[in-house]
Amino acid sequence: MGSQTTIPKGTRDFGPVEMSRRNLIFDTIRSVFRIYGYRQIETPAMENLSTLLGKYGEEGDRLLFRILNSGDFLNQKGEVLTDDITSQELAPRISDKGLRYDLTVPFARFVVQHRNEITFPFRRFQIQPVWRADKPQKGRYREFYQCDADIIGSDSLFNEYELIRIIDEVFGRLGISSVIRINNRKILSGIASIIGEEERITDITIAIDKIEKVGVEAVKRELVDRGISAEAVSGLEPILNLSGDNYTKLSELESLLQDSPAGLKGIEEMREIFSLLETSPVRSNVMVDLTLARGLNYYTGAIIEVKAEDVVIGSICGGGRYDDLTGIFGLPGVSGVGISFGADRIYDVMSALDLFSEDIDITSRVLFINFGGEEEKYAISLLEKIRAAGVPAEIYPGSVKIKKQMVYANALSVPWVVMAGEEEREAGMVTLKNMMTGEQEKIAASDLINRLANA
Amino acid sequence: MGSQTTIPKGTRDFGPVEMSRRNLIFDTIRSVFRIYGYRQIETPAMENLSTLLGKYGEEGDRLLFRILNSGDFLNQKGEVLTDDITSQELAPRISDKGLRYDLTVPFARFVVQHRNEITFPFRRFQIQPVWRADKPQKGRYREFYQCDADIIGSDSLFNEYELIRIIDEVFGRLGISSVIRINNRKILSGIASIIGEEERITDITIAIDKIEKVGVEAVKRELVDRGISAEAVSGLEPILNLSGDNYTKLSELESLLQDSPAGLKGIEEMREIFSLLETSPVRSNVMVDLTLARGLNYYTGAIIEVKAEDVVIGSICGGGRYDDLTGIFGLPGVSGVGISFGADRIYDVMSALDLFSEDIDITSRVLFINFGGEEEKYAISLLEKIRAAGVPAEIYPGSVKIKKQMVYANALSVPWVVMAGEEEREAGMVTLKNMMTGEQEKIAASDLINRLANA
Repeated sequence: MGSQTTIPKGTRDFGPVEMSRRNLIFDTIRSVFRIYGYRQIETPAMENLSTLLGKYGEEGDRLLFRILNSGDFLNQKGEVLTDDITSQELAPRISDKGLRYDLTVPFARFVVQHRNEITFPFRRFQIQPVWRADKPQKGRYREFYQCDADIIGSDSLFNEYELIRIIDEVFGRLGISSVIRINNRKILSGIASIIGEEERITDITIAIDKIEKVGVEAVKRELVDRGISAEAVSGLEPILNLSGDNYTKLSELESLLQDSPAGLKGIEEMREIFSLLETSPVRSNVMVDLTLARGLNYYTGAIIEVKAEDVVIGSICGGGRYDDLTGIFGLPGVSGVGISFGADRIYDVMSALDLFSEDIDITSRVLFINFGGEEEKYAISLLEKIRAAGVPAEIYPGSVKIKKQMVYANALSVPWVVMAGEEEREAGMVTLKNMMTGEQEKIAASDLINRLANA
Repeated sequence: MGSQTTIPKGTRDFGPVEMSRRNLIFDTIRSVFRIYGYRQIETPAMENLSTLLGKYGEEGDRLLFRILNSGDFLNQKGEVLTDDITSQELAPRISDKGLRYDLTVPFARFVVQHRNEITFPFRRFQIQPVWRADKPQKGRYREFYQCDADIIGSDSLFNEYELIRIIDEVFGRLGISSVIRINNRKILSGIASIIGEEERITDITIAIDKIEKVGVEAVKRELVDRGISAEAVSGLEPILNLSGDNYTKLSELESLLQDSPAGLKGIEEMREIFSLLETSPVRSNVMVDLTLARGLNYYTGAIIEVKAEDVVIGSICGGGRYDDLTGIFGLPGVSGVGISFGADRIYDVMSALDLFSEDIDITSRVLFINFGGEEEKYAISLLEKIRAAGVPAEIYPGSVKIKKQMVYANALSVPWVVMAGEEEREAGMVTLKNMMTGEQEKIAASDLINRLANA
């Protein structure tokens, strides 16, 4: 046995209980996306490497799973191998395809490829696994699901507002209290610009991203270490120390950024989103967070990150606006904004908070004991009626010892067991056992459906 | 653009309309599996090649998609490359993992790996894509979904009966009239044995499998060409000519196979299944078909194949009993029986028969025209109430020209459009337009939910 019954590291099997719980998460996200008019697409697991390479930085290219070309892959391109060839040289000669690394690049490719069939603005959602050859560790897998919603072909800030509502609705339905932090790339640009370090925006955001963890003083030291001038760092100080509610922060920021048109535009955008949120408030805590800088090279407007309020864990959802996603595939000038839910992190949060009800682990609600012969046929006829009423139910396959059948019922957490031996069958009755209380009673077979439907 | 916006050959993108239709098929299969007490599992897309190789024959090994090892794959195993190395020699040195080829082998691996956590008999279902490097052609893809239900750890024929019910229920719900053909490996063995050609069972079944296409005489010629003795071929003749209903066929076969214990056992098993089917009849046409021989090396008892009655297309579901699936992974003696639905073929059958209602292509039921400003906020407040009532609805993102918004509504086949300009907002009214009839009327905003919920 041994090696034949393992799976590749970083991948997972999901048994029935995990599947019920995972499905609760996926079904919730899917329903909310649908209620908001988002339309589902799916793309292939494999994409051409020309689609994937160069989109995720050097690190990303390295983490792509590549598919070996089929057949006589060495001779397909008439390549001559030398014995000093390196892996890096060989890989592109023997591999044209890779597994998708995220859902965003395949979506951009989809939009460009199908641009003549798509009605814009295009609200799309996509729930599929992605693969990364990352070093596996706790909570990080080589195969995991992403649940993305994006709207492309509209630069209205209404979309940002609506995505925040979607986030709020998903976590509300799952019972997770969430904090939704928002920032804006234009504000970050404005800050870099007014302190005279426009070119250093990446260094600045990397440093201030850590403010919550290490504090203002440490961030200032890091900025100096990264070669930001002392003058610029002291110019940043009032921004790092901003406090108060969202509107107060934005007002103070407005006076600090009055010389940066980009910064003022970012503030205006934030205000517009908060103004829409007042129309129809959400339950989540939505806050301006100027230190938020995820995926900076990618986002051009709003930046969104969500954490669970009661569990210390990474972000459970994130996203933002990008003004030129499809430009890399030759279709420039299409603005979009999107979010991505991390199903695995959400699962961990719900486990930590004990948010999964025991009920969802139940598959069959009823088990019929199998007495064989005529009794089996009697049980089958009742069983089919129960199933026709939409109640998941089963009969033990084969008339083995009753004790064994009861052990099976217990292991599956079946709430009800129906026993119908010769005596019951002849009288048109069944014995119904409540597996929680152990109580059992004889009832007319014709009452069974009602009893189970109302139980 | 060009090469960057294509996908690997044999793979597909699915847009929103295809997804709605595919989801109808998957949701139907999933619900029926659940009603019958089958429990869902998922396994990783990648399996170790040691799990996959040698399980599908030489052809299957060739069709596996292999994953290139990550990092410096040439040096990982200290291999020295020579310039005359062949693809076949190189592949195992640079690739340890492959994409799953079906759901059966991963399931067998799962059962062995998790045997201590599983309660047997284990009814499991699994709906996931599989990958095969087959030559792409019409109706044959390199990535496609399988929908499998298997019960393992029970040799009761009740399971075969129940799987036939599941098949019947799935196709009944989808509106497909199906013919379910069943055979039994033991009967095929019995036939080969009584004509004295026990060792030639594969040749015999390959030939008689074609009887429907080419007729009895051609099958006889093929048998002779395959080296079956003239005597054996004439011994086969009464079997090839069997006719009548299922019970008649089985009775005649019983006298022909009276000297074959295996054959008689097969007939007894068939009778048991038909007897259970009388308890609770199915709508499909279930028929004994002695020429059915799919996956012969694999199945040990019942063999099942399903075709659509009104469309000429390959099988849309198939399966059978295997007595030693997990033996290859070191857990012998566990009998199982299972079926697999081919979602892509079912999709083609439903398209050919026009079984998809236009309704399922609708995503949002309502579009609010966006007039901007206070009107946008008024619309949002109504929109959120409609969504809260579970009706998928949207507002056009941004207050562009109304004509453009109406074009969008038409393209999305939205059945209702709500217009609420300044006048409507001040009066607490909306204008509701039926996009099918073109009629529009002014109603109180408070009546909107009722109108849409009942429309």
